[in-house]
Amino acid sequence: MRIGKQDNAYTSITKSDAASITVRGMDLASEVIGQLDFTHYFWMLVTGQAPTETQKFFANAVLCAIAEHGLVPSVAVARMTIAAAPEAFQGAVAAGLLGCGSVVLGSAETAGKFLASQIAAMERDGLSSAEAARAGVAALRANRQAIPGMGHPEHSAGDPRANRLLALAREHGVEGPHIAMLYAVRDVLPDILGRSLPINVNGAIPAVMLDVGFPLAALKGISLLARTASLIGHLQEEAERPIGFMMAGAAADRIEFSES
Amino acid sequence: MRIGKQDNAYTSITKSDAASITVRGMDLASEVIGQLDFTHYFWMLVTGQAPTETQKFFANAVLCAIAEHGLVPSVAVARMTIAAAPEAFQGAVAAGLLGCGSVVLGSAETAGKFLASQIAAMERDGLSSAEAARAGVAALRANRQAIPGMGHPEHSAGDPRANRLLALAREHGVEGPHIAMLYAVRDVLPDILGRSLPINVNGAIPAVMLDVGFPLAALKGISLLARTASLIGHLQEEAERPIGFMMAGAAADRIEFSES
Amino acid sequence: MRIGKQDNAYTSITKSDAASITVRGMDLASEVIGQLDFTHYFWMLVTGQAPTETQKFFANAVLCAIAEHGLVPSVAVARMTIAAAPEAFQGAVAAGLLGCGSVVLGSAETAGKFLASQIAAMERDGLSSAEAARAGVAALRANRQAIPGMGHPEHSAGDPRANRLLALAREHGVEGPHIAMLYAVRDVLPDILGRSLPINVNGAIPAVMLDVGFPLAALKGISLLARTASLIGHLQEEAERPIGFMMAGAAADRIEFSES
Amino acid sequence: MRIGKQDNAYTSITKSDAASITVRGMDLASEVIGQLDFTHYFWMLVTGQAPTETQKFFANAVLCAIAEHGLVPSVAVARMTIAAAPEAFQGAVAAGLLGCGSVVLGSAETAGKFLASQIAAMERDGLSSAEAARAGVAALRANRQAIPGMGHPEHSAGDPRANRLLALAREHGVEGPHIAMLYAVRDVLPDILGRSLPINVNGAIPAVMLDVGFPLAALKGISLLARTASLIGHLQEEAERPIGFMMAGAAADRIEFSES
Repeated sequence: MRIGKQDNAYTSITKSDAASITVRGMDLASEVIGQLDFTHYFWMLVTGQAPTETQKFFANAVLCAIAEHGLVPSVAVARMTIAAAPEAFQGAVAAGLLGCGSVVLGSAETAGKFLASQIAAMERDGLSSAEAARAGVAALRANRQAIPGMGHPEHSAGDPRANRLLALAREHGVEGPHIAMLYAVRDVLPDILGRSLPINVNGAIPAVMLDVGFPLAALKGISLLARTASLIGHLQEEAERPIGFMMAGAAADRIEFSES
Repeated sequence: MRIGKQDNAYTSITKSDAASITVRGMDLASEVIGQLDFTHYFWMLVTGQAPTETQKFFANAVLCAIAEHGLVPSVAVARMTIAAAPEAFQGAVAAGLLGCGSVVLGSAETAGKFLASQIAAMERDGLSSAEAARAGVAALRANRQAIPGMGHPEHSAGDPRANRLLALAREHGVEGPHIAMLYAVRDVLPDILGRSLPINVNGAIPAVMLDVGFPLAALKGISLLARTASLIGHLQEEAERPIGFMMAGAAADRIEFSES
Repeated sequence: MRIGKQDNAYTSITKSDAASITVRGMDLASEVIGQLDFTHYFWMLVTGQAPTETQKFFANAVLCAIAEHGLVPSVAVARMTIAAAPEAFQGAVAAGLLGCGSVVLGSAETAGKFLASQIAAMERDGLSSAEAARAGVAALRANRQAIPGMGHPEHSAGDPRANRLLALAREHGVEGPHIAMLYAVRDVLPDILGRSLPINVNGAIPAVMLDVGFPLAALKGISLLARTASLIGHLQEEAERPIGFMMAGAAADRIEFSES
Repeated sequence: MRIGKQDNAYTSITKSDAASITVRGMDLASEVIGQLDFTHYFWMLVTGQAPTETQKFFANAVLCAIAEHGLVPSVAVARMTIAAAPEAFQGAVAAGLLGCGSVVLGSAETAGKFLASQIAAMERDGLSSAEAARAGVAALRANRQAIPGMGHPEHSAGDPRANRLLALAREHGVEGPHIAMLYAVRDVLPDILGRSLPINVNGAIPAVMLDVGFPLAALKGISLLARTASLIGHLQEEAERPIGFMMAGAAADRIEFSES
């Protein structure tokens, strides 16, 4: 089988031999374990560079912001799955993470791509941020797509996590083009939609992270890493006090059968 | 459908309303985001308690120890999967995590259960740790099972991550019954197997974590959370310099066809 | 990395070159496509042999029996997952299948192993089937484990799928030692549990399949292949008339928050 | 939580009570089990209708065509995963299916959407099929995207599975607009790409299936159901003669480490 290009094929993350493991240029045993915290190491694994204090601060902030929000779909899925298959903790975590998609949880990636593309359009076409935001939102509406990063079914008057992240960005002086575009998008909504929507956590996360220098291609990793921590907490609770099957029962009971 | 017990059904992790989210008793926006680091929050999510400084130190140490080890099977799986399905970053992470099983990566859980059961046997039957270790290893051998937490295909003379974690445990004075049992198991191997095996990282992790108070039922979560960080790094590299399909091709080329 | 034995490493399923693909000794293009039906081919893929008419009949019967049972946990999981991540149909199917575990759906494998081990015990120890069944059930009870293949939360007076499969086995004269052991297990329950339980579909499937010659190691494949067909039907319905998020909402609403 | 529309919420697939299960209007025990084969039932589950003989013939043909092709990436992934986590057969199948993406295996869906959109463009804009094909291919090239359904790394002179499926479609007189568009796309390639590419199996499958009336939204289900059968065969072989870790080792050995 010959699929995939044959040149330029190497990895730059890790090398190891019988006596040592070197990750991103650091000796794992002596320079990482017991020396670095996990958020620092995560940043290094993804970017190849040590984070600045500011970068680490915001990585911690966003990971904490998106990790846990109660019995949301990804958690329901994980708890139902461990109830059915208690032999495979990893399967329950994997099932939960599969719901980190473009619509919920993983929508930070969708929002990040949207912000980045509108900034690119602004620069390419000599638009103001308001013009670029307006064009982007109008295009989404024309395709009947949701505005990524805006609105929340529960926190309809404002998402406290988003507000906090954006306030921290202001305090720490890291507001850049992505946060500016996020505000521009929010500000054009009343005109185009006929109503305002608050910025949600999945709008704030990519804006903040891209402005502090995290790569766009790894944005979904933020949601996935954070939610993994939460799923472990829920699976630990499920081991002590199972609710997975009850949740499945309630889900089924909610839906009637009807001939189509 | 009525599966699952109907009483005692509640969650204690999170409550939320339109204006706020409270996790493990703390206001997410004002008391967690920007205040706690991710490892602290992870410990809290899982145990319901803030970690001590020592607990956080060892959580960071073990998460860094097990996160990354190059192009191991879980990484190969994730990189092949994103090559085939680039539309679903979450699917590639989930596929990689599904290899966090009882044999590799997830074997910290297997080893933790083994250590805990031999400690229980010791207490129940009034055995010395050496006697309990010997009985446990003999039982595994009788079933032709591997000794969890011992030996490594690459680091056959000693796993530098395990050595480092155990040295840190000694330095910080946290050695308890699980680390003692781990050493007892290692010490009976020459007699029973006819050769010594070094303690590997998946032996050291559960011993250290159980001795500092992390729950056994969530041990696999350590491996899963840590490896998620690594998979994100590899998927980011794959986006820049793809090798997933080449790895799949090399894997296929390694195996001959033969009539059975 | 050197994990895995190095000899005896070959595959006997498929070989291919630029012009042809040969699966289990048959030319895929000319001898399989358009010549064999999918159930026949499935049997061949798994066992390396063409099925007899009787084997194919029962493979079809059990695949139809276990495929679909409404909004059960695996279906709820798949529908919630596609709602969150509509870009990855494969992720929703995978999430649903992860619930094919030892407790529900995948318990045909658990039951098959139990039947096989009690038959082995019977032969090894010179027991009657009733004695072997009694010993097996007693051992499960001592470990507070459920009796695999017995009882159903909805079909408490009898599982119509199990009854039908077992009637077909009688009609077709394929009753063998596994079906006999299944009946023996059912018959000792009143004495040991103090009440009778009906045979469920996950008891009947392994008994029938093992008696017609399907391999024990692939038994979970029956549940997985069958449920995949059902999940595709549900995901198709979800595309037309979404209920995934409503099911997740109902699941969450069912559970109270309470300080532990 | 209130996400998802609240009306129009019902399922039309299955209803059940204590004594019976009714799927797509048929009594599961008396009218499906032992009466219908699995391919028939699969079609019914997805479409709500019994298949015609022709529909069933082509469903069987395409399921057999795409099920198995040796040690391809999805199979490598599944075999590596079961080697690492033998306790969860379902996890290995799920991991394999996660590679059923837009690039390989699942590309029948991509190709089907492409064919359908070019047919729609043809009808909307009054184009000939050649004009619509040319416009579609040109748009893909402008975005540097592959032409779905065309070319194969191993079968570069022609994919025997595609050739066979299309020959059967001609014989059975089921060629319709999707097969016509598939040929139109193939025929414009030399002009636009400067070389011809043969139709591959993932081009033939959607063309044939859409022309016999299978729904576009469930096309990926064909690949997933088929590959599940193959994965079960490989996992059964892995249980007897493990190669998963060796494949992972060969994959890792193929890639050098290099500072980026």
